[in-house]
Amino acid sequence: MKISEFRLHSLAVADGPLRSSYGRHAPYALRTIVELKTTDGLTGISETYGGDGPLAALEAVRPLVVGRDPFQLTSLWMSLGQRTEFERQGTGDRSQTHLVPGENPMDVHTRTLAAIEVACLDIIGKAVGKPICDVVGGRARSSPPFSAYLFYKHGGGGGLGADAREDEYGECLDPQSMVRQCKQMIANYGFKEIKLKGGVLDPDAEIETIKQLRAEFGPAYPLRIDPNCAWSVETSVKVGRELREELSDGGYLEDPAAGLDGMAEVRRRLLAEGNDTPLASNVATTAFEHLPVARRLDSVQIVLSDPHYWGGIRNQQHLSKFCEVLGMGLSMHSNNHLGVSMMIMAHASAACPHLTYACDTHYPWQTEVDEVVLGGRVPIVNGCVEIGDKPGLGVELDYDQVARGCERYAKLPYRKRDDEAEMRQHVDPNWKRILPRW
Amino acid sequence: MKISEFRLHSLAVADGPLRSSYGRHAPYALRTIVELKTTDGLTGISETYGGDGPLAALEAVRPLVVGRDPFQLTSLWMSLGQRTEFERQGTGDRSQTHLVPGENPMDVHTRTLAAIEVACLDIIGKAVGKPICDVVGGRARSSPPFSAYLFYKHGGGGGLGADAREDEYGECLDPQSMVRQCKQMIANYGFKEIKLKGGVLDPDAEIETIKQLRAEFGPAYPLRIDPNCAWSVETSVKVGRELREELSDGGYLEDPAAGLDGMAEVRRRLLAEGNDTPLASNVATTAFEHLPVARRLDSVQIVLSDPHYWGGIRNQQHLSKFCEVLGMGLSMHSNNHLGVSMMIMAHASAACPHLTYACDTHYPWQTEVDEVVLGGRVPIVNGCVEIGDKPGLGVELDYDQVARGCERYAKLPYRKRDDEAEMRQHVDPNWKRILPRW
Repeated sequence: MKISEFRLHSLAVADGPLRSSYGRHAPYALRTIVELKTTDGLTGISETYGGDGPLAALEAVRPLVVGRDPFQLTSLWMSLGQRTEFERQGTGDRSQTHLVPGENPMDVHTRTLAAIEVACLDIIGKAVGKPICDVVGGRARSSPPFSAYLFYKHGGGGGLGADAREDEYGECLDPQSMVRQCKQMIANYGFKEIKLKGGVLDPDAEIETIKQLRAEFGPAYPLRIDPNCAWSVETSVKVGRELREELSDGGYLEDPAAGLDGMAEVRRRLLAEGNDTPLASNVATTAFEHLPVARRLDSVQIVLSDPHYWGGIRNQQHLSKFCEVLGMGLSMHSNNHLGVSMMIMAHASAACPHLTYACDTHYPWQTEVDEVVLGGRVPIVNGCVEIGDKPGLGVELDYDQVARGCERYAKLPYRKRDDEAEMRQHVDPNWKRILPRW
Repeated sequence: MKISEFRLHSLAVADGPLRSSYGRHAPYALRTIVELKTTDGLTGISETYGGDGPLAALEAVRPLVVGRDPFQLTSLWMSLGQRTEFERQGTGDRSQTHLVPGENPMDVHTRTLAAIEVACLDIIGKAVGKPICDVVGGRARSSPPFSAYLFYKHGGGGGLGADAREDEYGECLDPQSMVRQCKQMIANYGFKEIKLKGGVLDPDAEIETIKQLRAEFGPAYPLRIDPNCAWSVETSVKVGRELREELSDGGYLEDPAAGLDGMAEVRRRLLAEGNDTPLASNVATTAFEHLPVARRLDSVQIVLSDPHYWGGIRNQQHLSKFCEVLGMGLSMHSNNHLGVSMMIMAHASAACPHLTYACDTHYPWQTEVDEVVLGGRVPIVNGCVEIGDKPGLGVELDYDQVARGCERYAKLPYRKRDDEAEMRQHVDPNWKRILPRW
């Protein structure tokens, strides 16, 4: 069995005006659907970051992919490794302090490998008649849990022109409306853990938001807040101090300050106050080489992995083992995604014995209108995605929907995520991402 | 597909009077062959440590194995983990300083898991029509290299009574005869790297042995010496100093002194002399939790793994990733074994991208007479074992040979490896393993 076709579909997916320290989400998120066909007539699919950069990186490996036995992934990885200019230099910054996930040239090969690996595992699963999580060693759980992912946001929803549509959450730029957003989202999906994207309002307003969420939902719903490095060490410590009670019971403080050193200082100062709220990160720890440093400095107690940029599902399993051995927690980071990525994240979570928190997902922010999975959106029930027993990823492409996503993409003037540009256009013509802002 | 039968075959395998710091090898090594059959009519095999202890550990998991889908290995691991008294206590010593591999109660579950995992992977490989190394991600290499493994030894060979047979190497208890042993072994198998088991003669005689091997074979054949912790830190430093030239060019000094602290001190003192001969270990680092400590103390620069006690082939892949990330080398430890284990080691080596030295194997010390693999012994050509493209492990059992091995086992008076007892019986009635001896 050899890979005989390698197709890439660039899609635009309507996305609401969500806010973060990076700025404001554009009316469409960009995604790439990868499709591999084999000489045996099998099709494997995958989903990854969109736009020109990720597309070019995937195109660049076409000669390594076409003609390959989909079981031979190690040699693909070794070929990529040998071709990485950035990795060879070994001096770049692989953190996501300054670049959004999917845009760091240091990650290009782990992202590319992940996209190809998943499509190959989908093929293997279909050849074997087993779900991906079982192909890679068997499931640690069959219904991995996800978390409500709350965003401060402007009114309206995603899309442009005739495509524009309101979302059900409306404007949420204060604590009260965030409690409403959370109630709606939990009513829709049954999430049991709650994450708030912060770094948007004044820290006092975000502290108040978390306090109101805690008052509403109580300690049975663990709470997290993630300002994406928008705070100084001083502010991070202040927030950690004021939210000590609210972030206990399975909560955490995510990426309050930038860098492994900054995070370590926040940790040190909180511990000195007897506050052991764990720090989580998908910004300071984005590659294996960060882990021993993060452990040594005690910068990060919970790694937020993402199979999309950590190198795929088997690398996710390596990461699970690393975190277990190093005594670190593990959960999962997310970007806006469709149903294919939802299943990638579900299989990756199912295949990791050591996974200590419900994972992030942006899935509630996308809709049926853009879904490319045949039969419609992947259900999230009681906050969990059921793996089931369908071979491979367990989802197939709806090619009409893929074509619609490609049409939307073709019409768009941008080929790269730029949340700062959106802020300048819609909110403040002089807006810049400043770290730390507070 | 479910596992419907779980059979264990206890075998005795003739073994020569090889010497190490543990004592003298008995006339028979003990091995267990694991055999699983599925409801689909597939058979998966494996090989592991022999004797009462390993057998009881395997018997204990029978209820977890029979009825299991062979793809569901993660949940088997999680069930074992939850049942480990020793691991729950978390205070035991998992090193092999005082216990031979296969006898440490702290390793019981990783050893048991490894034996079951490999038999399941053999089944999966057969179901899929792919070799094991391809089932677990694809091969990094198709012909993993092994090393000549030289032993000081008494005359004669393995076996007892009518079964006794001379080996071709005769007595080797001085430098000259060791050079002869090495020439014979390289002529037979084409090895390109050479490992000497030390800790037997006075260190000066072992230094002289290495010097004569270097004089004979030159720098193209990397040299290692492994006294299994028989030396003090002082002696280790002395040997490292005197063999600095001979252990360069891809050589290493293996487990000269006991413990992560002892190894660290040897390393520190050698480095202080400008001597960066790497230290390898399969004694101080035998489990994942040792790795961060070994790295922090710089005790071990090369981990000698063994899929038989590190938890199987997928754990071997985790280990490869750990060593790559931590900047450590990786090679492989061996115990006396048959052709099934030869293939386990070959697949494990093939499946690890980061593997930096030719692996150990005792295989030349066993013979066709005891081989249980159908068609006879696994060929080692130019020092390498060819993986080929047969499904699973790529070898099947010769049931007549298995029966003969079981008969030999049934007649033996011992059920546990005890090299000290052999020394007392044949060499010195008062012999004890003393660490350090020199």
